[in-house]
This record gives sequence, C-alpha cells and structure tokens, in this order.
Amino acid sequence: GVAAADVTLSGDARMGVTYDNTADNKAGFTSRARVTFTLSGETDSGMAFGASFRADNSLIGVDFTEDEFEDAVTPGAAFGSAGSVFISGEFGRLTMGDTNGATEQVTGDLHGVGLTGLGDRNEFTYLGNTGSLRPTARYDYTIEGFTVAISHTNPSNDLKVAAIGAGYTFEGFTVGLGAERETGGPAATRTHGVISAAYAIDGISVKAMYGRLTQSGADNANQYGLSASGTFDAVTVSAFGRQDFNKDRHIGIGASYDLGGGASLKGGIVNTNFDADVKSRTRADMGLAFTF
Amino acid sequence: GVAAADVTLSGDARMGVTYDNTADNKAGFTSRARVTFTLSGETDSGMAFGASFRADNSLIGVDFTEDEFEDAVTPGAAFGSAGSVFISGEFGRLTMGDTNGATEQVTGDLHGVGLTGLGDRNEFTYLGNTGSLRPTARYDYTIEGFTVAISHTNPSNDLKVAAIGAGYTFEGFTVGLGAERETGGPAATRTHGVISAAYAIDGISVKAMYGRLTQSGADNANQYGLSASGTFDAVTVSAFGRQDFNKDRHIGIGASYDLGGGASLKGGIVNTNFDADVKSRTRADMGLAFTF
Amino acid sequence: GVAAADVTLSGDARMGVTYDNTADNKAGFTSRARVTFTLSGETDSGMAFGASFRADNSLIGVDFTEDEFEDAVTPGAAFGSAGSVFISGEFGRLTMGDTNGATEQVTGDLHGVGLTGLGDRNEFTYLGNTGSLRPTARYDYTIEGFTVAISHTNPSNDLKVAAIGAGYTFEGFTVGLGAERETGGPAATRTHGVISAAYAIDGISVKAMYGRLTQSGADNANQYGLSASGTFDAVTVSAFGRQDFNKDRHIGIGASYDLGGGASLKGGIVNTNFDADVKSRTRADMGLAFTF
Repeated sequence: GVAAADVTLSGDARMGVTYDNTADNKAGFTSRARVTFTLSGETDSGMAFGASFRADNSLIGVDFTEDEFEDAVTPGAAFGSAGSVFISGEFGRLTMGDTNGATEQVTGDLHGVGLTGLGDRNEFTYLGNTGSLRPTARYDYTIEGFTVAISHTNPSNDLKVAAIGAGYTFEGFTVGLGAERETGGPAATRTHGVISAAYAIDGISVKAMYGRLTQSGADNANQYGLSASGTFDAVTVSAFGRQDFNKDRHIGIGASYDLGGGASLKGGIVNTNFDADVKSRTRADMGLAFTF
Repeated sequence: GVAAADVTLSGDARMGVTYDNTADNKAGFTSRARVTFTLSGETDSGMAFGASFRADNSLIGVDFTEDEFEDAVTPGAAFGSAGSVFISGEFGRLTMGDTNGATEQVTGDLHGVGLTGLGDRNEFTYLGNTGSLRPTARYDYTIEGFTVAISHTNPSNDLKVAAIGAGYTFEGFTVGLGAERETGGPAATRTHGVISAAYAIDGISVKAMYGRLTQSGADNANQYGLSASGTFDAVTVSAFGRQDFNKDRHIGIGASYDLGGGASLKGGIVNTNFDADVKSRTRADMGLAFTF
Repeated sequence: GVAAADVTLSGDARMGVTYDNTADNKAGFTSRARVTFTLSGETDSGMAFGASFRADNSLIGVDFTEDEFEDAVTPGAAFGSAGSVFISGEFGRLTMGDTNGATEQVTGDLHGVGLTGLGDRNEFTYLGNTGSLRPTARYDYTIEGFTVAISHTNPSNDLKVAAIGAGYTFEGFTVGLGAERETGGPAATRTHGVISAAYAIDGISVKAMYGRLTQSGADNANQYGLSASGTFDAVTVSAFGRQDFNKDRHIGIGASYDLGGGASLKGGIVNTNFDADVKSRTRADMGLAFTF
C-alpha cells in the first residue's frame, strides 16, 4: 500500500487581560502560543490510525499552581500521559493516552466561557480524569447516532477507574448516560453516575447535566449544572451555572466576536460562591484568541 | 474571509569548541539544534496577527547554570513567558509575551560576537528584562522612520516595570531614547534612562550607548559601550566594549565567514575585567553555525 | 548559492499492553506519540549539513524511573545533549551532540524485540554512552565499504571517554572492531574493546558481539551476545541472548506484522536471569507501532 503517513501542524495563541478579586494584584496580563502536532496514516486494509499532541506537552506537563515543581510535573506525550493515539475501522475506534474516560466522552462538560477558561469551572468532575492514571484506553463504537464507549485507566496503577457510557443523537437532541467505578483509592470503592441532555438548533444550544457520587465510608455527593450558548452572526454568547461535589456554586457568562481568519475577541466572567466561605471569588478576562 | 492562518518551521544549529580560562576544564564542546514555530494569520478587516516561539521553549525554559533545578525553570510559551503573540494594523502593533520592554525595543544592545554569544556581554542591562515579569505587553507605532513604544510588565507581579521609548532612523543614522521605571522591588523606585546612536553604511555599522540608573536608597550607576561590525564579501568582523553597572568591563571581538546555504564559520573572544577582582575571565569559541 | 535549508517533520506512536512479573501491578498500558524535526542544508561548496532531534527532547530529557525529578532531568537538544548536528563532505562526516561514540558507531547493538524495547536489554554497555558526557564529537570516514571513526566526549567534563572504531562490509558480511578509554572517573582508567560480526542475506540477519572491560583497581569483565532477525513477507521475527558485565543473562524474542502504511503489530518477551538473585524478571508487551 501507499504510505499516507503524515505530520501536520496547527496552533493557537491568545493575548489579553485578567482579573481576580482574590489575588494580591487583581489585574494581570495573559498571553500564550502553542502548536499541535497531528499524525495520521492508513493501513493497507483501510484502517485509519494517528496521534495528536501539543508541542508543549511533548515531554512533560507542568501545573505552575503547585507549590513544589516536582509535584507540578506530569509525564507528557512521550509517556502516554498527554496527547493520544488511535486506530479506527469498521470495528470502531480504540484510543490510548490522555483521553476521556468513557463516561466523560459521552456526557462531557457544560459550555465554557472567557478567553482563558477562567478556571474551567464549567467542567464536571470525573473520577477517571486524573493525569497519574494515564494512559487511559477507551473503545468507542458509533452507528446511526448511537455511541457506546468503555474505558479503563492504566492497570499498572493501584487506583483504577473503569467506565462505560452511551449516547444518542437525533434531530438536534443528544442524551448521554454513563457510570465510572474507582477501586484501589482511599475509599474502597466510589461510583459516579452521570446523565446529560442537550439540544441544539439554529446556532443555539442548551445543556443540562447531573452526576451522583456514591462512596463507601463517606457521604454521597451530587453535582449538576445548566448551560447555554447562542451564535448570532459574528457574536457568540455563552453562560453556565454549576454546583460541584463540595456544594460550591459556579456561574459564568462570556461572549466572543469573530474577527475572521481565525481571530476572535473574547471575554468572560466567572463567580464561585464557596459553601464553606462567605467570600466569593470572581475572575474575569478579555482579549484576543487566535487559531492557526 | 478566507482563513490564511498558518504554522511554519525554521531552525538553527551549531557545533564547535569553547574555551574558558576560569573553568576547571578550560576546553569544551558546544552543539545545539533548535526549531522555531511561526504562526501567522489575518483578520477579515486586514489586521495581521501571529505568534512565534521555539520548540524548546514551548512549555518551560531552563537555565542550567542555576544550582537548583527548581530555581532554573521558567514558564514557557504556553504561559506567556517565552515567545510572543502580536496583532498589528493601522493602529500600530501590540505584542505580548517574552518581548522587549519599550526602552530595549528602541535602544537595543551592542553588536555581539562569537559562535555561542560568549555570555552575551554585549547586552545592556534593562530593568524590564526579567523572565518572572512576563508576559510583557508593548505597543509600537512606526511612521516614516519614527518609532514610539510603550510597555508594561505583567501587573499581577508586585514588581512592575513601565517603559517608554522613541527612535528615529534617517539616511543610515538611527537614534534611540528611552526610560523605564521599576516599582515594588527591593528599592522603592528605580529609573533607568538609555540613549543610543548608530550609523550604518555599505555593510559597516557602528553603535554607541549610554544608560543611567537612578535608584532610591542606593548609589546611582552608569553603563555604556561602543560596538562596530563590518561585512566584506563573505567575512563579517564585529567588536564591542562595554562597562556595566558594577563597573566590570567587557571587550569582545569576533568574525564569521559565510559558507552559503545558511552555514557560516564563526568565532570570537570576550574578556571581562572585574572591578572587584584582579583575575579577569576570558572566553572564546569557534565553530559552525547553521540556519534552516 | 541557493538556500536549500529546510525543516521537515516525521513521527512515531504506539499503543499496547505490557507485563512485568516483578511489578506490584503486573499488567499495564503503554502509549506514546512523538515528533522528530529534521533540519538539512547545503553550503555553496556542496557540503551537506543538518541536525535532527525529537520535539520531546528539544529542551530537556526526563528519566521517570529516577527517584528524584532533579536527578532525572538531562539537558536536551538546545544544549547538545539530545539530538545531533553534522556536516559532511569529501573530508568525511563530523557529528556532535547525543551521538554514538566511535566504538558503538561501528559495533552497535544486538537485534531488539518488542513494542517498547522491553528495557533495551539487547543493547551493549559502552563507556561513552552517558548523557552527562554530551555533547560527543565523532568523525567518520567511509570508503568502499570500509569505515573508520574516532570520537571524544565533552572535554569540559572531568570524566572523559575517547574512542576509535573500524568496520568493513562486503557481500552481506559486516565486521566491526573498536576500543574506548575512560579517564577521570572513579577508576583511574578503564578500557573497553568490542568486536562484532554480522551477516545478512535475503531478509535474514545474524550478529555476534563480544566486549572486554579492563579497569585499574577492579576486576576485568566481559559482555557478549548473539542475535538474529528474519523477515518473511509481512512477518519479522527477532531474538537475542546476552550476558552483561554483571553476569546477568538476558534473552528476548519478538515478532512484528507489517500492516502497511507505517503501521505494524508488535510483541515481545524478555527474561533477565540475575547472577546475584534467584528470582528472574520477565517482561512482555504487545500492541501497535506507527511511523509517520
């Protein structure tokens, strides 16, 4: 067969200002530039395979909010803990690496806001979404709008998360249902069930989500949220509200204006009302986002 | 509008030998290879935008001369502390990231020498040139040879540096004038004024610079220097002399021979005469430099 | 001359499962994705030059098996300790960076097995193969099947390794002979001589190797091994046996099936029988390997 294997480049960048009412210096600048490698090929029998990862994640990842640099470092795409690798064919698709667990894959997250994501408070908590559990392996099969997925985190870790998910899309309506089960962690077992429902029509989409955590030796907990996004010509407005497992409440609203050619003007504001603290945290940002 | 967004690659490499009279082992090898990503696009209204950073700076930067690895690590292009992002149009150009302060942008540095830069002793000290202050935002406006620039370091840091600069180029003659002001540091305030003058004709260029540091609670200090570079067919010869704020004196001379196709043979020697030490430091190098 | 300098991309990835009888959790997932930059150019006089390094090695390398992160970090291609740079012409070829010493360059290693390399137990031990000794400089000259090579590690290190090697290839038969000498290390001097012989015909190759280490103030030691590989249509089978300086014995066998387009199914098993331990270690893997 003809070798169709290829590596291509894409990129993203941003520049703007941030605000955080809890910081010593409330105002800040934000800028970043990143490149993504996309590797693709096809076997003689017609199976597609490939991989994708960002240049900045090629060896390691760093979370600069950690106190100790050593704690802040996670392995990167060279170790299966960033980016992902896949093969797909009539049998479905198998993905390994820093990829969603099966539950998250079908139920996902709420609509996000802002230039920087503002802490990604729109994202649901998933048991399998921990860097140290990578690589995760997930198998997906999709037919006529129906998707099933199963996944497992790296079995070489003591803490293991197995997950399943199923989703169905018809006439703009999408429902997702999944469950993930953690063993070998501090709690003997934890089970997390998630349900999501979304509807999209004419550039407007709404989504509702609910998750319930059942754990041995600790109280059960819930997370739920609602979000919407609407695009009107060059303007997109998004908003979300979510309560997490700690009963902290997050609300966010944002807007973007498409400047064409891959550039947009984006801004947002997110407020977190902590269950255990009278002082709330408000973060905001505004600036330019670029895709290449 | 048509998406013109694109990512391109360029690179540089070198191989050679080094000498340092203060090292336990005076001779050494030097080699390196690097790749730069350049991201570019254009909005529907004709504004150019883009970003650029090196692959090795995509996540973090490391200064291996630091004793502790943790101290040696700085954030990279994914965090706005390496590379830079810009947008430009009739309004001028706005740049964010690891970019010069406005003063350095117009007054710059003296001519450098050698294969490796030999410690970059040709570079002036600027208050705003500290990695931990990134991202810096700078606005430039250029019209008919006249440039004005203003900049500010990341306001989320306690230590802040604001800067201005202005330059004018006419008939091979370039003058630059700038001032930067630091607040929130160990000294209550520090102000640094810099003036530069350069002349270029027929492949020969000369440059003179002077900077004066005024600080509350400490002695004022000066830095100044002179450099020249001349290209004669395939050969370029450069030299500089500089006295820094510590009254250490640096002189350097170097030459390069253009082999064509992006290759050149380069060498140089730099001597530093320390004000507080009778022993001077001499470094030298020679080898091949490649651009791709 | 016309600038022919260029940067190109290639990549590799894998996804599979691993087994290790000595691990707490014997089974594991493995996945990774990597990209390699290849830089190439040509001088006006027709000398070829270039460089190559992986994106994940652009700044640093990390060995995650080390206990301390700081100990696990080595400099990358930006510091001459990963990737390599070369220039070649009628005079031969000069390479600097993370490149083989002259002995390893001509005598090499035994055939490897498996998806992940399974610890690379097929690789001979060479004195000059230590990351902290980079950059290494090596000069090769090849004419009519005959190759000579000399190399030296970075002279700025106290520990230095000089090496020579010579090889000859004729009618499928290849012999290699080399010696490397270490000074400045814990032992006053260590000398390592290696001989290799290989034969290849019709997709089948066999190789035998022997190395003898002579050290002042310590016992001499030997390493030796034998390996073979055969390709039959889409299937390749490889095997090796090796005894190292510690008298530990390693045997491995593996197979791969070419799926076309850069994809193959690979698996292997390696057993190490420790001289000082009754318990042996067995590692195995299987999965998909991709090249792009």
